[in-house]
Amino acid sequence: MSVAPAETQSPDHEDVHRSPAAPPVVSFFTAPDRYRHWRLDVDGEVATATLTVDENGGLVPGYELKMNSYDLGVDIELYDLVQRLRFEHPGVRSVVMTGGLERMFCAGANIRMLAQSSHGWKVNFCKFTNETRNGIEDATANSGQTWIAALNGTAAGGGYELALACDQIVLIDDGSSAVSLPEVPLLGVLPGTGGLTRVVDKRFVRKDRADLFATKSEGYRGATAVEWGLIDATVPRHSFAEEITRRATEAAATSKRPVGAQGVQLPQLAREDAGDEITYPYVSAKIDRAGRRVDITVHGPSKAPPADAAAVLIQGVDYWPMALTRALDDLILHLRTNELEIGSWVLRTVGDVDLVLAYDAQLGELSDDWFVSEVHHYYKRTLKRLDVTSRSLFAVVEPGSCFVGLLLELALAADRQYMLDGVYEDVDPDAEPATIVVTASNDGAFPMGNELTRVQSRFWGHDDDLDAVRARLGQKLDAAAAVELGLVTMALDDIDFQDELRIVLEERASLSPDALTGMEANHRFVGPETMETKIFGRLTAWQNWIFLRPNASGPDGALRRFGTGRKGEYDLKRV
Amino acid sequence: MSVAPAETQSPDHEDVHRSPAAPPVVSFFTAPDRYRHWRLDVDGEVATATLTVDENGGLVPGYELKMNSYDLGVDIELYDLVQRLRFEHPGVRSVVMTGGLERMFCAGANIRMLAQSSHGWKVNFCKFTNETRNGIEDATANSGQTWIAALNGTAAGGGYELALACDQIVLIDDGSSAVSLPEVPLLGVLPGTGGLTRVVDKRFVRKDRADLFATKSEGYRGATAVEWGLIDATVPRHSFAEEITRRATEAAATSKRPVGAQGVQLPQLAREDAGDEITYPYVSAKIDRAGRRVDITVHGPSKAPPADAAAVLIQGVDYWPMALTRALDDLILHLRTNELEIGSWVLRTVGDVDLVLAYDAQLGELSDDWFVSEVHHYYKRTLKRLDVTSRSLFAVVEPGSCFVGLLLELALAADRQYMLDGVYEDVDPDAEPATIVVTASNDGAFPMGNELTRVQSRFWGHDDDLDAVRARLGQKLDAAAAVELGLVTMALDDIDFQDELRIVLEERASLSPDALTGMEANHRFVGPETMETKIFGRLTAWQNWIFLRPNASGPDGALRRFGTGRKGEYDLKRV
Repeated sequence: MSVAPAETQSPDHEDVHRSPAAPPVVSFFTAPDRYRHWRLDVDGEVATATLTVDENGGLVPGYELKMNSYDLGVDIELYDLVQRLRFEHPGVRSVVMTGGLERMFCAGANIRMLAQSSHGWKVNFCKFTNETRNGIEDATANSGQTWIAALNGTAAGGGYELALACDQIVLIDDGSSAVSLPEVPLLGVLPGTGGLTRVVDKRFVRKDRADLFATKSEGYRGATAVEWGLIDATVPRHSFAEEITRRATEAAATSKRPVGAQGVQLPQLAREDAGDEITYPYVSAKIDRAGRRVDITVHGPSKAPPADAAAVLIQGVDYWPMALTRALDDLILHLRTNELEIGSWVLRTVGDVDLVLAYDAQLGELSDDWFVSEVHHYYKRTLKRLDVTSRSLFAVVEPGSCFVGLLLELALAADRQYMLDGVYEDVDPDAEPATIVVTASNDGAFPMGNELTRVQSRFWGHDDDLDAVRARLGQKLDAAAAVELGLVTMALDDIDFQDELRIVLEERASLSPDALTGMEANHRFVGPETMETKIFGRLTAWQNWIFLRPNASGPDGALRRFGTGRKGEYDLKRV
Repeated sequence: MSVAPAETQSPDHEDVHRSPAAPPVVSFFTAPDRYRHWRLDVDGEVATATLTVDENGGLVPGYELKMNSYDLGVDIELYDLVQRLRFEHPGVRSVVMTGGLERMFCAGANIRMLAQSSHGWKVNFCKFTNETRNGIEDATANSGQTWIAALNGTAAGGGYELALACDQIVLIDDGSSAVSLPEVPLLGVLPGTGGLTRVVDKRFVRKDRADLFATKSEGYRGATAVEWGLIDATVPRHSFAEEITRRATEAAATSKRPVGAQGVQLPQLAREDAGDEITYPYVSAKIDRAGRRVDITVHGPSKAPPADAAAVLIQGVDYWPMALTRALDDLILHLRTNELEIGSWVLRTVGDVDLVLAYDAQLGELSDDWFVSEVHHYYKRTLKRLDVTSRSLFAVVEPGSCFVGLLLELALAADRQYMLDGVYEDVDPDAEPATIVVTASNDGAFPMGNELTRVQSRFWGHDDDLDAVRARLGQKLDAAAAVELGLVTMALDDIDFQDELRIVLEERASLSPDALTGMEANHRFVGPETMETKIFGRLTAWQNWIFLRPNASGPDGALRRFGTGRKGEYDLKRV
């Protein structure tokens, strides 16, 4: 969210009930030489990411990105930048995030963009920006790249939320620059990109102070901001750069990043679109528009893993787990953003079980290698993206599939798992029946946002069942064993399988998309909650509710009136 | 939610944007001899609560409560019944909840009632029903009254959610009765009275099975329902009563309820309404409609606590903490339900600090006494009601106040605390400046829904600050000390105090009620989450969102079309 400057025109068309103009098809590929809003400078161990938003560089017509306010296009660049730092720059040990405008770090999400966007666009935009900020925290926690927010000016709304994703926040002391969350007082919405949650659950700001802060549009600065924990330090202009360098150098010194390692470049993905078929290396997708579903197939590796870390590095983006993850990541983002009516995703795998097991083992064995570790965490983050995707996920386990180890996580992330018991008699009666394998990596390598593994989530409250699964690690489990252990929803034989699956998918397509979204969001996260699950669950759900309320998005709502000089007109009832 | 039977008329007036007819002023007082829907039978150690809804007994015109479906009026009786069991029937050690209709336990919330209700009414209704179900769990956990659901027939939607609140669920095996959550497939909304959460987080039903269950409108019965954990047992009609008696007797045997104790009757509260002033013993409230706020004053006791448990029991409902709690409970419910535009609640206390301290100590000292324990838990539950109240809460600490021990919890529950430093020079220059006292009871007796105390919540992430407060337990803290320890938001002197408070309340009244609701819900619950906070946070927020979506509540939405023979017409986009 932001306090982008007043727009003179009033927001045009579209309200909660009217459909907006068709949004553009969004591509998530970019590269530093294409950036219009961010600049990445690498100076030895320290990188600097500078935000200087091109006012005329909006992804969609209808708004100007003034005062370093952002839209999805700006955030796609940031995501790319975070990824490239991890893969292309192994020598970078701390990252300074700063702004390129005078006295303004970032004004947050562009309000006019929000006001003109459909509900779905707003929700998707917030989800992606949340994931990117979580990714910054993941880089700090797991990649030895500590992010430091060097606030050269005011950080308002989403601008401050960007800073909150960093490990440290240093604000320039120039007598006016402040940090603020003006969403509630100015816009009638929440600081929904983690703001409310991180202020109290990460920065540990006292509840009453958080209340003062989030209702005071001009925010806080100076000693108060430091004392309350909103920022770590405030530093005069003359020593600001020096202080940032000191902190960046200090953080770099604690990093376990390798010295002198060669990075892995991230070229544009080899993606082919042919009508409703999308093909990447190792991942393909075929959309069935009438059925409102997409069949996604993940392909196992074609040969054994490289011999050692050096050989892995030589393969780089072609290393099977890396290539697979890049494709999955792009496909998830594409379908989520551009294919809103495709409500069910059917996940399959095809490949050699033993080869997948070999790669699965290698990820564990070479976990000390920086690149293998990055691949592992990237796959972990991509699975988390799947967990928070508001689509119904079905895994289909058939002969020829390879749901083992890291690929089994795809099935466990699904809402249901259907397994063929036996073979398709009329297709390939001599096939080997499918097996699945739970490995050590399923027991810890890929935690969900709630910090449970997907196996732990599955057997929440049933430690005996969890132990039974753990006793079978590494074993090939046929349909009977998978059912017995509770790893699949059901196993049916050839005669019933296809009919059942067809009926299930038809039924799913007939249900309310909204009710499914709410239901899945609740079922997928049992047990404990973390800052991350609170952001995607509680905070996002409240924000989505508020986005629909006339007080925010109605013709006289605060979001629509912002910048017109008129305040929002509120229905004063509390509900 | 429910699967009440088809209504032949289509739902009338009102959609998301139109105001409904003014809802009635709701009274929360009732008594068994007034019940129209529930019957309470006490037979020694076992009580039976039987639901036989009067079809024509709806709280609001426009719907018939067929098939044991319920509305707010039905649930007000249930709440009363739960409370009376705890206070009036100390000898009851287990409670059987069953239905009085043939083959139907309860069809859940009445759909036609939901379809015709305003958004605010739906949200308030769900909040109250959630609190009542939490209260049933609290009675099982803390009162030695174990609730057992004896499902004499189908428990659908909110009917099954009622059963989920019980410690055990036994379903009759008659070849047709089932448990179900048909909200998603039939109504396009969630099982929002804890259903989704309790299925996976209390009954520990596996995620994929929960998904099957919550999308299958007819539900499950028999061995599958038992195996999945949806119910504990299914028993043929001929041995059903016997099995229920066996379980009730067994549960009663483990209870620590006293033997031969005399109960405390709950007469109608002495409440006086005079215009916008409401007065109870020990609690008064004055509504300022122009300012959209209410000033609530809690009065301390007028004399020392009774000598011992026997003397406490003689006082009964007049025992100060009990009288206070009953009044607060009623006031909270009244204001929440009937005064939607009164957005800010300003909490004050008046009384003798030492007398309050004496009562506060007594609640701890006599905690083994059943009645004192009930009072303690009732006050705890009432504070929890305050925590989830979507109103801005301000505590004002002035000379003559007694925010100590149990009453300090009111201040800690508030979003902010304002303390006068010194005295009002022109009112009473000789007054004693206010002090607050943190006692042992603040350090454990009244946990919030997240199982943290309010002091722990306040200092979440700051163990040193928590320790500093703990080192001062029992001490009278003046404004300077209270600020220093972080127990109040700010302390101002006479000159600034009233102006500041006026401005704060005016500013609050100018903000979006929806944004405040979302903000406060996020700020009040830091740290860990529990089933209870998930229900009020995540599940409720999603449900509120869905309630606003045209797919549910629009003219062609599933909720509005239910019973017309036509399915909901959905915008198929997932967001």
